Amino acid sequence: MALLSVLTPVFVAVLCVMIALIFINSRKTDTVPRPETKGGSKVESRPWVDQDLQDDTEITPRDEDDDWADSTEEEDLAHVPYSPPRYPVERMLERSQDFYSVMNQRRSVRFISSEPVPRDVIDNIIRTAGTAPSGAHTEPWTFVVVSDPETKHQIRLIVEEEEEVNYRQRMGDKWVNDLARLRTNWIKEYLDVAPYLLLIFKQTYGILPNGKKKTHYYNEISVSISCGILLAALQNVGLVTVTSTPLNCGPQLRLLLKRPANEKLLMLLPVGYPASDATVPDLKRKPLDDIIVRV
Amino acid sequence: MALLSVLTPVFVAVLCVMIALIFINSRKTDTVPRPETKGGSKVESRPWVDQDLQDDTEITPRDEDDDWADSTEEEDLAHVPYSPPRYPVERMLERSQDFYSVMNQRRSVRFISSEPVPRDVIDNIIRTAGTAPSGAHTEPWTFVVVSDPETKHQIRLIVEEEEEVNYRQRMGDKWVNDLARLRTNWIKEYLDVAPYLLLIFKQTYGILPNGKKKTHYYNEISVSISCGILLAALQNVGLVTVTSTPLNCGPQLRLLLKRPANEKLLMLLPVGYPASDATVPDLKRKPLDDIIVRV
Repeated sequence: MALLSVLTPVFVAVLCVMIALIFINSRKTDTVPRPETKGGSKVESRPWVDQDLQDDTEITPRDEDDDWADSTEEEDLAHVPYSPPRYPVERMLERSQDFYSVMNQRRSVRFISSEPVPRDVIDNIIRTAGTAPSGAHTEPWTFVVVSDPETKHQIRLIVEEEEEVNYRQRMGDKWVNDLARLRTNWIKEYLDVAPYLLLIFKQTYGILPNGKKKTHYYNEISVSISCGILLAALQNVGLVTVTSTPLNCGPQLRLLLKRPANEKLLMLLPVGYPASDATVPDLKRKPLDDIIVRV
Repeated sequence: MALLSVLTPVFVAVLCVMIALIFINSRKTDTVPRPETKGGSKVESRPWVDQDLQDDTEITPRDEDDDWADSTEEEDLAHVPYSPPRYPVERMLERSQDFYSVMNQRRSVRFISSEPVPRDVIDNIIRTAGTAPSGAHTEPWTFVVVSDPETKHQIRLIVEEEEEVNYRQRMGDKWVNDLARLRTNWIKEYLDVAPYLLLIFKQTYGILPNGKKKTHYYNEISVSISCGILLAALQNVGLVTVTSTPLNCGPQLRLLLKRPANEKLLMLLPVGYPASDATVPDLKRKPLDDIIVRV
C-alpha cells in the first residue's frame, strides 16, 4: 500500500499523457472521412458495396507519369513511322461537319425495340471501343454483351431493386413528389426488351507475370473514354442506348456475370433500334460559346 | 497522501480504460486512408494540390439516380418523338466496319506539326464533344482552346516542371534507368509546337439560381465520355493528339487560364497534323476475344 501511494504521482502523470494521446488520436480521426459515409446510408448492412466502390476514389500518385503515351512499356518498343490519311482543308471541314451532324442526333433513349440486331455490328462496335487510349496502354476494359433473356431479366431485377431503394429514399427527401411519377423511373422494362445489354467493366488492376497486382491508374477515365467512342460507334449505325452507371448494383451484377474481383462495373447500356413510338425529353444542348473558351 | 493511496486502485482502473480507448482510436485511424497520401509526397508543401484533386474522389451518393436520362429536370420537360436515321443491315455492317477502320488508325502521337489547322474544324470538333451524354444533362465541361504562343509556352513550363519532379522521383525508385532516356520523357516540345492545346475542364459543381452549389455527380465520367467523342472527331478529320491527364498541374493551369474554382483540369490534348517524320511505338491492341464476353 505504501509503495502504491508512493507511485500515485506516477499514475497521475501517466494519466495526463494518456489523455493527451487520446486527444491527438481522436483529432486525427476527425479530419479523415469515414469510409462508411462514402457508400451511403445502406453501406453498414452491405459492406461489400463500399468495398466494391472504393476503386472510384483512387487518385493518381505523384510518381505516376501523366502522359499516357510515355509509359515505360512503350519506351521499350521499337518506333514505326506513322502517317494517317491527310485530307485537304475543304474535306476536313466537310468531315468535321458531317460527324457533328450524326453525333448531334444522339439522344438517350429508353424506348428500345426488341428487333434483333446483327451480332457482327455489335462486334465491330466493341472493336471500335477497344481502340481508345488507356494509361500505359493497359486497355483496362471488359465488354460483357448479354443477349440471353434469362440473364437480362436477372439484371433487370437487380437494377430495379436498387433503383426502387434510391427512389424511396429520394421520396423521403422530396415528399412532394407523387409516387406515380417516380414509379416510371425505377421500372426499367428496356432491360428485358433490348436485344443486347452491354455491361462495361473497368479493370482496376492487372496481374503481373510474378503474380503481383499491377494497379491500372486512370482506369476509370480510360474506360469512360472508351465508352464515349462506343456511343459514337452506336450512333454511327443508327442504334440507340441510355447511358447508366449503376454503381450500387455493380457488385451483384459482377457476381451474376461471374466477373473477377479486379473488374468493377462502370456502365450498363441497353442497345437496340429505337421503338417506333420512341420519344425523348425536349432537351437543348449548350451552344458552342457556352462550352468553349479561346485563349 | 492517505486519500491518494485509497484512490490508487481507481487510477489503475482509469489507466486501463485509457489504454483501451487509445487502442480503439489508433485502429480507427489506421483503417482510414490519410488525405495526405492522396496528393502524394509533395502535398504538405502545396496543400492546394490535394484540395484541387479531391473532386476525383467523389462517390455517387446512394440516393442519386443511376440512370442519367431519368433526371427530374428531364421529367419536367415535354417528350417529343425520336426517329433517327435507320440503315438496312448491309449498310449498318458497312458503316460499323468503316468507322472501326478509321478509329483503329488512331494513335497517341507526340510528333506534331506546327502547320496551322482551320479554326472552324476545331470548333466543329468541340461542338461534337458537346453532344456527349452527362449526368442529369448537366453538360459539366469547359473546353479551353489555346493558340496563343505565349500561353502555350507558360503551359509547357508548368507541365515540364511537374513532369521533371515525377521523373526524378521515379528515378529514385528505378535507379537503374539512365537519365538520358528519362530526359526524353519530361521534355514536351509539342506543347510549344502544336497549333492548338485543348485543356478540358470538368465542372465539379454548378451554381443554382438561389446561389447554392449544385453537385455535378458523374462529372468526371461524363467529361471523359465527351473526351472519347472528341478523340473520335479528331481522328475523323486526320488530326492527332496525345492523351494526357496532368492532374498535378491542374491547379496551376487553372489559375493560368483564369478558370473558376469549380473547374478542374481533366485532360490536356495538344492538337495538330502529325509531323512528316512522326513515329509511334509499335504497339498492338488486344484482339476482340480478349475484351468481349458473350452471355
